[in-house]
Amino acid sequence: MIETYDFELDFQVRDYECDLAGIVNNSVYLNYLEHARHEFVKSMGLNFQELYKAGVYLVVAHADLSYKTSLTSGDAFTIKIRLEHSGVRYIFYQDIFRIPDNKLCLKAVITTTSLINGRPAINNTIINAINKLIAKRSV
Amino acid sequence: MIETYDFELDFQVRDYECDLAGIVNNSVYLNYLEHARHEFVKSMGLNFQELYKAGVYLVVAHADLSYKTSLTSGDAFTIKIRLEHSGVRYIFYQDIFRIPDNKLCLKAVITTTSLINGRPAINNTIINAINKLIAKRSV
Amino acid sequence: MIETYDFELDFQVRDYECDLAGIVNNSVYLNYLEHARHEFVKSMGLNFQELYKAGVYLVVAHADLSYKTSLTSGDAFTIKIRLEHSGVRYIFYQDIFRIPDNKLCLKAVITTTSLINGRPAINNTIINAINKLIAKRSV
Amino acid sequence: MIETYDFELDFQVRDYECDLAGIVNNSVYLNYLEHARHEFVKSMGLNFQELYKAGVYLVVAHADLSYKTSLTSGDAFTIKIRLEHSGVRYIFYQDIFRIPDNKLCLKAVITTTSLINGRPAINNTIINAINKLIAKRSV
Repeated sequence: MIETYDFELDFQVRDYECDLAGIVNNSVYLNYLEHARHEFVKSMGLNFQELYKAGVYLVVAHADLSYKTSLTSGDAFTIKIRLEHSGVRYIFYQDIFRIPDNKLCLKAVITTTSLINGRPAINNTIINAINKLIAKRSV
Repeated sequence: MIETYDFELDFQVRDYECDLAGIVNNSVYLNYLEHARHEFVKSMGLNFQELYKAGVYLVVAHADLSYKTSLTSGDAFTIKIRLEHSGVRYIFYQDIFRIPDNKLCLKAVITTTSLINGRPAINNTIINAINKLIAKRSV
Repeated sequence: MIETYDFELDFQVRDYECDLAGIVNNSVYLNYLEHARHEFVKSMGLNFQELYKAGVYLVVAHADLSYKTSLTSGDAFTIKIRLEHSGVRYIFYQDIFRIPDNKLCLKAVITTTSLINGRPAINNTIINAINKLIAKRSV
Repeated sequence: MIETYDFELDFQVRDYECDLAGIVNNSVYLNYLEHARHEFVKSMGLNFQELYKAGVYLVVAHADLSYKTSLTSGDAFTIKIRLEHSGVRYIFYQDIFRIPDNKLCLKAVITTTSLINGRPAINNTIINAINKLIAKRSV
């Protein structure tokens, strides 16, 4: 289990997200994870649109998803995120816990990278935002 | 029933499109209809990307959907389209028939318009493509 | 404009709901509307699962959607609902307003019906819940 | 690269599957993979509905997705699958290649399991179908 998270966001399962089997379809978790990541990134002061205009493009390079417990109609849940940085890779550890019993539903490791002119490259705005996040952690 | 259609496209229901109730979720039909419309428009020689670059933007203004028979896992179906043109409105009559029994599943009337600089306006490329379509009908 | 609504629910656009054109895809509004309807119906004390076990099955028969203003990335919005009842038809008037400028984005009329053994039929639990709703309005 | 595959299925990108960034949203690949898997499993003579009625429930336990090249509007692609079996785990190696240049777009390893009464357990119908598949390979 991750000791400290940088961000968390609550969700509620919507019925249209459930499939024939009566549970949230496995693809929908990637939607949840993306939305939580984008809100987290915004909370760090980063702006996708501005980065995009500056030619910086954030993409998912790898996703590792361990499905532990299925979410279903009526469930509420929290996504907790911790960000690690390594070179041109920004790794989001994202865990989904059901509310209110705190049962672990999904463990995800989403590796993203920043493309500049189509190639993985570091961008200062992103690095500064990450450094501020790390500084905040140790307070 | 519409007498003649201008275009048709076959589909197969995918399991992830079905919901808790075991049938294709009602929102998914709009996905099917959009894909069929885009393929139809391409077959007319129109290119969304080129229109977009020329500042012409096609949008859905109104959708009228009559759900007749639910599609479900394993079903195949055909979408048949007829296009009518009236001023700045392009009206797509789209009917969904189940394969192989030809049962009517959905009747849709999708009214679209072309925006130029954010306002409904006629574009010659579109009008020419429609006129060619109408000429083809009477052959 | 509808004078009084029976229910309202706030949403936030999620980036994965936007399409190539940079706006919420027109099919996604049906997802929003369904979720708001289900929360409304739950707030009326009705339980889909229990109705389903009793052989009562609620389906969408018709959807009429007027797209007024596109929602886009970062937008928040409210769905307001008013329910009207007519025979075996339960008609949901659902309007979407952008937050915070209250701009009308979509007007929807969603006609649903209750199927019992596959045929449209009235169910007492539903009628009682509607009568309670109507009684509450006149207070 | 996997030497031999057991199954392949062609797809075409639909515009509604693309997001703000102009490419297929990363969650949509899980939809594609699921549909290809279900078609593959059907081609092996297995029937989800019958298994389900017999109390056997197939679930995704783990997904490992390496995004290599983005698919975009207008693209066609093939999903190729190889199935490996290890105890109660059925591992689907699924690679996505763009048509016509055969460019690798995604490498996925989807680990599924069969639940009987909620616990991972082997089912004979499934094992027989896998043995038939393996026998076919060596021909």
